[in-house]
Amino acid sequence: MRKFNFYPGPSTIATSVLEKMRAEFIEFEDTGAAFFELSHRSGTVVDCQRRIVARLRQLMGVGDDYHVLLLHGGAIGQAAAIPMNLLRGKKQAAYAITGHWGRLAAGHAEAHCQVERCIDTSPECTSIPPADQWQVPADCAYVHFTDNETINGVEFQELPDLDGQLLVADQSSNILSRPWPTDKVALTYACLQKNIGPSGMAVVVVRKDLCGEQLPITPAIWNYAKQAKADSMANTPATIQLRMLELVLDWTAEAGGAEEFGRRNRAKADMLYDFIDASDFYANKVDPAVRSRMNIPFVLADASLDDQFVTQAEEAGLIGLRGHRAVGGMRASIYNAMPEQGVSQLISFMQDFAAGNG
Amino acid sequence: MRKFNFYPGPSTIATSVLEKMRAEFIEFEDTGAAFFELSHRSGTVVDCQRRIVARLRQLMGVGDDYHVLLLHGGAIGQAAAIPMNLLRGKKQAAYAITGHWGRLAAGHAEAHCQVERCIDTSPECTSIPPADQWQVPADCAYVHFTDNETINGVEFQELPDLDGQLLVADQSSNILSRPWPTDKVALTYACLQKNIGPSGMAVVVVRKDLCGEQLPITPAIWNYAKQAKADSMANTPATIQLRMLELVLDWTAEAGGAEEFGRRNRAKADMLYDFIDASDFYANKVDPAVRSRMNIPFVLADASLDDQFVTQAEEAGLIGLRGHRAVGGMRASIYNAMPEQGVSQLISFMQDFAAGNG
Repeated sequence: MRKFNFYPGPSTIATSVLEKMRAEFIEFEDTGAAFFELSHRSGTVVDCQRRIVARLRQLMGVGDDYHVLLLHGGAIGQAAAIPMNLLRGKKQAAYAITGHWGRLAAGHAEAHCQVERCIDTSPECTSIPPADQWQVPADCAYVHFTDNETINGVEFQELPDLDGQLLVADQSSNILSRPWPTDKVALTYACLQKNIGPSGMAVVVVRKDLCGEQLPITPAIWNYAKQAKADSMANTPATIQLRMLELVLDWTAEAGGAEEFGRRNRAKADMLYDFIDASDFYANKVDPAVRSRMNIPFVLADASLDDQFVTQAEEAGLIGLRGHRAVGGMRASIYNAMPEQGVSQLISFMQDFAAGNG
Repeated sequence: MRKFNFYPGPSTIATSVLEKMRAEFIEFEDTGAAFFELSHRSGTVVDCQRRIVARLRQLMGVGDDYHVLLLHGGAIGQAAAIPMNLLRGKKQAAYAITGHWGRLAAGHAEAHCQVERCIDTSPECTSIPPADQWQVPADCAYVHFTDNETINGVEFQELPDLDGQLLVADQSSNILSRPWPTDKVALTYACLQKNIGPSGMAVVVVRKDLCGEQLPITPAIWNYAKQAKADSMANTPATIQLRMLELVLDWTAEAGGAEEFGRRNRAKADMLYDFIDASDFYANKVDPAVRSRMNIPFVLADASLDDQFVTQAEEAGLIGLRGHRAVGGMRASIYNAMPEQGVSQLISFMQDFAAGNG
């Protein structure tokens, strides 16, 4: 029986999407083969790739002045690919560090340029200073920020207001979880494995005029200009991810798109934060103004009960709640595919656990 | 109904493997989720990764002095990653060009070092000169060759005898298709999508003592030393590929491993080449001494019949036979998962087509 899956990624996918994929797993339509057994040059796969791009354009409001690329690897791959493609002769880039993933992205960029950490809230990472406090040098190629930090549970509530700077946003863990001003961001990227599919692919939405000046050492599979020209097929893409991505995007659109998920995710997160804040047994330390709607870390009053909490939660049909090893405690990841019922069952369990151990 | 699928990659996978994956597609064992919805840090996924490595060590005869890595991207990704990792301070590497993919790999390496094309059989690419005719400079970091060229249909029948040189072999299209002397090769690599799974991952088997001197610009996801230390989980791997790779490797082992597939593939290829050679209507131009057992390109006596051949073959349940756009004509890709019956049905169809158009 399927359980409520709170893993941070890879993570839960709508059961209806899995059922559709399962139904076509031996043969896709009347092709005589599974989708992922067909050549990526076949009309079937090429059409799927085009439908995905059109769907992403619709769901994210992507204009004609942007490329939509579907590339190998996840966000850590792109953490390397972004400076390779976007430095455009400049010597430095700025990184806003509001948690684990921003810190990692900055480290990966250091192989290619001088990295200015324009803010760094380490080690606590429980707040985000307003943009007028960021130290952004004048001649940066771009300013990178992690729109949602999965481990620290910190999320930007709006774009940092940095007039005249090119923004690069890592939306790995909150893409399509709410409306997003794609046209105000130079590059938006995300791995699939939180809100839009299984791991093994990244979506990159990038302004066309910024592509084409990549470093000579840029691998072909991450050369944005080359991949744009080839409709993301300069090499063989991960075709099973393509088809699953399409099914998840269809499901996202049918449910009402980013606006509807914005409402649902706000409601789910409010329910859980309200419960935690009202409790003496659980605590979340993040500044309420920047709390993540996707990943809600919390600690128990007595950390020696952590293992017991995880075990009993699993017995109650709630999996994936252990916090990241870097910070400990618990974490509930409640992406688009987590229904409200999953959150209310989690709260019921947390109530019972607190009552039994308070 | 499933058809005989001759696509060059992505390509046919054993139906029994697909059935197993389909059976667990909504829930893997008693985890409450699909395999690819579980965290890559969960015991379930970590154990799978370890079983795959153990299975590859067994099937390929990999010694303890080698790492077995499972990395994002396919062979074109590795074409960039190999020089990044293996130059080790040297300025040049040698590439043996016996077809399209070797030519591409050499091009990708040029971003990082001086590339010596120690042989180049372009444009015909129908033969392989013996190793004593190769022009390998004394101080090369390694000698790269493409063990099987899918487009040109040329395959090495044995390792090039280059005493004292480190060999790097692209086995993308023939890994586990016959016994392979892994211990005589510094690095063997392959994408999954021909003999061992869907596209979206590469296997790299590399001598441990060669790792650790990567270029500073090496992306973390392709840093062999880093990935070896992290059991290929320095970043989130493509977990759906992991599970499918495991199922294909299990199927490979149950069938008798590389030795058994060596026999089967020899028999299938001989059957098709014998038919083509005896025919006035079809022709294969490759030197019989180096013909591929995996990809058999052939031309029709009258190229104006090509479209008709492809259409009628599809109607007869034989898909994916059109040759690569770079060379035209036809191509039958007959990887491990293509049963002998598929080849005999292809031959029957070719006989009928020739009789009807001869």
